[in-house]
Amino acid sequence: MTSRLALALLASVLPLSSQNQMPGPVYTADGALLPPQSYREWMFVGSNLDMGYSEAKAPKRSAFHNIYIQREAYREYAATGRFPDRTILVMEQVSAGTNASINKRGKFEDEFLGIEVALKDESRFPEKWAYFNFIGEGGKALPAARAQPKERCWACHNEHGAADNVFVQFYPVLRAARPR
Amino acid sequence: MTSRLALALLASVLPLSSQNQMPGPVYTADGALLPPQSYREWMFVGSNLDMGYSEAKAPKRSAFHNIYIQREAYREYAATGRFPDRTILVMEQVSAGTNASINKRGKFEDEFLGIEVALKDESRFPEKWAYFNFIGEGGKALPAARAQPKERCWACHNEHGAADNVFVQFYPVLRAARPR
Repeated sequence: MTSRLALALLASVLPLSSQNQMPGPVYTADGALLPPQSYREWMFVGSNLDMGYSEAKAPKRSAFHNIYIQREAYREYAATGRFPDRTILVMEQVSAGTNASINKRGKFEDEFLGIEVALKDESRFPEKWAYFNFIGEGGKALPAARAQPKERCWACHNEHGAADNVFVQFYPVLRAARPR
Repeated sequence: MTSRLALALLASVLPLSSQNQMPGPVYTADGALLPPQSYREWMFVGSNLDMGYSEAKAPKRSAFHNIYIQREAYREYAATGRFPDRTILVMEQVSAGTNASINKRGKFEDEFLGIEVALKDESRFPEKWAYFNFIGEGGKALPAARAQPKERCWACHNEHGAADNVFVQFYPVLRAARPR
């Protein structure tokens, strides 16, 4: 075997390891965030139902929120307790169904409603984290979204997130992984 | 570079591809199933809260059920509409919390309670699928579990599962992936 052949063989095999690269944020030319792709193949860290932070009445439409994080960001958090730069948390909203098929009580996840995103991008946001809502008027999915004003999401996440702006206290998979 | 060094380098790199092998069931010598490992890194397909199939009253302890499937089994289902042999679905039970931290309404996932498993193993079970409960007396985690009697889980799954004994109708990620 020549060393050239050996290198060619290596090159044909090595890309497998690059599949472990963390998917990061993708922006439009004018700085809006595109919705993350394939996040359902990331790691699920917890779900909640109609969760709210005020005494206000429940939302009009009962919904589950499923939270996902890149697998690589999860592993980094489990190893160090820190979320790496370019961490993305996707919150998928799914309407709560009941009394369908053989279901008689409780609630199951019914129809996809849309996503919101928390993104850590230290070189782009002075506060490190920014928040994006991809659900437009009438529930329409937006092709791109701009960061919400700081006082809208960031301030509460910063004050109450158990770790680095993240509501780890509500996500059992992250709580279990947290280094002691 | 010698060909021996090249082969050694290849050997050190090639195992990456074998990481794509689907994790399968592991049994004790006397045929009980061991609890699946690392299922939280599999694909999440849906959650539900206090879901029941009878008019009976709600369970004593409110709980979420998170359903996971091996990534390879998911891909096969998305491509063909069939669950491959050795498909495992893990149902993780997590108690429902409320009024903790800044949460004022709705429910979030609080404490890990245990897991149940649906397993397709065509060479072992005449009905292809079998069902296992790893939650013992007083909520104790069992180190291994035997298949439940056929009439306990299998019969209902077989009659009402939207696809191949699986309640796809309640799992939005599987519904979305189902070939048309």
